[in-house]
Amino acid sequence: MPKTKEAEDIETRTEGLGDLPADEFRRHLHAVADWVADYREGIASRPVSPTASPGEVANSLPAVAPEQPETMDAIFADLNRLIIPNLVHWGHPQFLAYFGSTTTAPGILGEMIAAALNVSAMTWRTSPAATELETVVLEWLRGMLGLPADFKGIVYDTASVAILHALAAARERANTDVRALGLAGRGDVPAMRIYASDQAHSSIEKAAITLGLGERNVRRVVTDEDFRLNVEALRAAVDEDLQNGLRPLAVVATVGTTSTTSVDPVLEIARLCRERDLWLHVDAAYGGALALLPEGRWAMEGVGEADSIVVNPHKWLFVPLDFSALYTRRPDLLRRIFALTPEYLRGDASAHEENYMDYGIQLGRRFRALKAWMVFRTFGREGLAARIREHCRLARLFASWVEAEDNFRLLAPVTMGVVCFQAMPNSQHETTLANEFNAALVERINRTGKVYLTRTELRGQTAVRLAVGNILTTEDHLKNAWDIIRSEAERMQK
Amino acid sequence: MPKTKEAEDIETRTEGLGDLPADEFRRHLHAVADWVADYREGIASRPVSPTASPGEVANSLPAVAPEQPETMDAIFADLNRLIIPNLVHWGHPQFLAYFGSTTTAPGILGEMIAAALNVSAMTWRTSPAATELETVVLEWLRGMLGLPADFKGIVYDTASVAILHALAAARERANTDVRALGLAGRGDVPAMRIYASDQAHSSIEKAAITLGLGERNVRRVVTDEDFRLNVEALRAAVDEDLQNGLRPLAVVATVGTTSTTSVDPVLEIARLCRERDLWLHVDAAYGGALALLPEGRWAMEGVGEADSIVVNPHKWLFVPLDFSALYTRRPDLLRRIFALTPEYLRGDASAHEENYMDYGIQLGRRFRALKAWMVFRTFGREGLAARIREHCRLARLFASWVEAEDNFRLLAPVTMGVVCFQAMPNSQHETTLANEFNAALVERINRTGKVYLTRTELRGQTAVRLAVGNILTTEDHLKNAWDIIRSEAERMQK
Repeated sequence: MPKTKEAEDIETRTEGLGDLPADEFRRHLHAVADWVADYREGIASRPVSPTASPGEVANSLPAVAPEQPETMDAIFADLNRLIIPNLVHWGHPQFLAYFGSTTTAPGILGEMIAAALNVSAMTWRTSPAATELETVVLEWLRGMLGLPADFKGIVYDTASVAILHALAAARERANTDVRALGLAGRGDVPAMRIYASDQAHSSIEKAAITLGLGERNVRRVVTDEDFRLNVEALRAAVDEDLQNGLRPLAVVATVGTTSTTSVDPVLEIARLCRERDLWLHVDAAYGGALALLPEGRWAMEGVGEADSIVVNPHKWLFVPLDFSALYTRRPDLLRRIFALTPEYLRGDASAHEENYMDYGIQLGRRFRALKAWMVFRTFGREGLAARIREHCRLARLFASWVEAEDNFRLLAPVTMGVVCFQAMPNSQHETTLANEFNAALVERINRTGKVYLTRTELRGQTAVRLAVGNILTTEDHLKNAWDIIRSEAERMQK
Repeated sequence: MPKTKEAEDIETRTEGLGDLPADEFRRHLHAVADWVADYREGIASRPVSPTASPGEVANSLPAVAPEQPETMDAIFADLNRLIIPNLVHWGHPQFLAYFGSTTTAPGILGEMIAAALNVSAMTWRTSPAATELETVVLEWLRGMLGLPADFKGIVYDTASVAILHALAAARERANTDVRALGLAGRGDVPAMRIYASDQAHSSIEKAAITLGLGERNVRRVVTDEDFRLNVEALRAAVDEDLQNGLRPLAVVATVGTTSTTSVDPVLEIARLCRERDLWLHVDAAYGGALALLPEGRWAMEGVGEADSIVVNPHKWLFVPLDFSALYTRRPDLLRRIFALTPEYLRGDASAHEENYMDYGIQLGRRFRALKAWMVFRTFGREGLAARIREHCRLARLFASWVEAEDNFRLLAPVTMGVVCFQAMPNSQHETTLANEFNAALVERINRTGKVYLTRTELRGQTAVRLAVGNILTTEDHLKNAWDIIRSEAERMQK
């Protein structure tokens, strides 16, 4: 590392009005390193969820900020006493809620370094290596997903923000001069419609609301018995809207829905989108990871025909929150909407350089690529695939236990890491009672502090939803979870 | 910490298909702890910016992800060889661009812990302590800023996203049923107008574009000689729009503009907003921090009258990227727009609990409060204020050096940590030549690798823009920067 002479002449301020003294910081870094190592090593011994009531944590903390500096010892005492016991431990091996936690050793190390660098990858010039590593990592991921080379990736924080950008591109493609003029006060722009299955994610509505398209212009289309979008119903909905003078804009197909990880028939949907000139966005935020397995490629069939695809490495690719990758073959549309260089960035934004700020709403952009790069290299594609494969195996195994038990039944096919099932108490076959029983069962299970699950609703049936995806979860953890689920269900019947 | 019996019976998987083995992870954590400590301790000895050409970093990395796991040694070798030398070091004490870097020791420690916890604070139940600490930290900040108690805070990633939410609330307040119906294809909703000064941030246009309001419906209002919004011109613009049947929606006033940190007359603007029934959003993303100083309270005069305010602790309050706080006295409007609970979260979202997902677009939410809590406690309010005060002193001191030099002149008043100035070479008093000279000067200075600055344009004049705000920057660093600036300017005249 070359040194500048001037820099050597100047003593870095590390005291008084500067940062913590260097030796003190080093000591704290090592203390936190041990804290993190201990936390991860001992996480299975903790209750996975707390028993706190709302307000308990807030009320135990001062109402105003301290005037004077406090010691790291005091801060850590509060962290250990008040904060940690009142968290749900997403990294716990018996945390089986939502989509599994993505905390991993290389991901944590990557975040440490990114925090120390604290660069903002808004333009290439503001951090060349951060911009280029983002491009490289997105190309790696594109390759692992088997997406065609004309898809360009962009990193956003969450899939909700990624889908907002995808639908903004669809809106822009309609050529209504919406960037300049907006949508209000115009007689020349009809209502624009977005289609998705009744199982698709609520972020579609949030995006439609935000973009001024309107929640009611998201048409939810029925699904088949396996919770996959019914293409004929989609076609009918689109044609009905066309006949009514509305403008069909985009379809959102899902690869791995949130409730059951069902996979829409993307290829058929893509054909319809071509015929009707619709934007096709594929929400593979969770399910895209399956494409890393040769036996999982089926889930991505037709996805290469899409206009945009979102995959969240923070869902099933072991990268900590937040990291959502949007791929599109129309990045020009995102630039057409969002490229806007103010005077104070004019010197930093050359058209010959890749300036990721031009593709979206956010200007400040964390160095998210670093952690993904470290995770992908630490595990390798095969290592990532082996872990995803194991999660699929565990989910199928759990499903087989459910199926083998008289008082339980599956409520959806198991295609990835999620199992939706229902306890069927002998006396309560009536739907309302069964729903109440299962909702109460989830609450009871979570109150044990030993397993953490969620519930969802499928065609009016309340399902217990178990998701495997946490890197620490093993077959033994799952067995243990199953024992707890069964025994809580039994106790409820007494 | 109570242990569950079952958990003790199960061996946490740390090998094979799990995470890195615990002892290996601990070793890496300590290695990275030293890496971070070394990086921060030696940062002043590095060139602040690289000399790489576009594509250099990307071309030196493999085009596809590795198949097999790689060692942490190999990853760190690449990190040190390829990534670090090709970054702009935002934490370098002679990084004087944008708004100063916010890397600090407690902020880095906070990010380490947050990455290990990797919780998502979408609902209270998904992490009670993360939700409540967010509320507590936002209340601390509200108190430090001197904002009235009826302002509720919400954390977003960036000010661009925060302003998007603020203007969404303004749009909602107009009662056009926009959530359900959107804006397109309706005869009953006129074009809606947003007003801001010609110095305000470009995120206003990005928000207007996103929300379907349209870039041209953002009216830029002239500023006075000190770059402050001219209220009479604002009034005239609003009234003209009203006469033309347009709907004035919101005014964005700025406390600390990006180019010069000028402060709009918020109190007068607030009065006009009341008279004309407009939403007032105050962009104090940078300048809000000044409110921590008794002598800086002037900058927040009238801000308590606003409907929403954004302050970015990741700009001048020593919290690493990303952390942007939006305060509003109309959180009900944000909920009215964005609250939307899907089936798979129904069990986790009780109306009696604070679910931050209800206030915005994003569902996944990192545990950002933790780092802010650690920073605020480590420095204390007085410590934060003392550092901000020192940055203001340094900026004024630098300005005095500029003023004392014949060949330089200030282009804007210095109110916070930013100094805008111009080199005036003897032979080049003509504006175009002076602009070219100063743009080239910034490029030359940055190419030295010793100082990093940006430029901006003020009333057709190209200004060199220097920002103090980095916790490591001392008077000596600033002197050194000034020497380099002068000597580069001299060399250019030879």
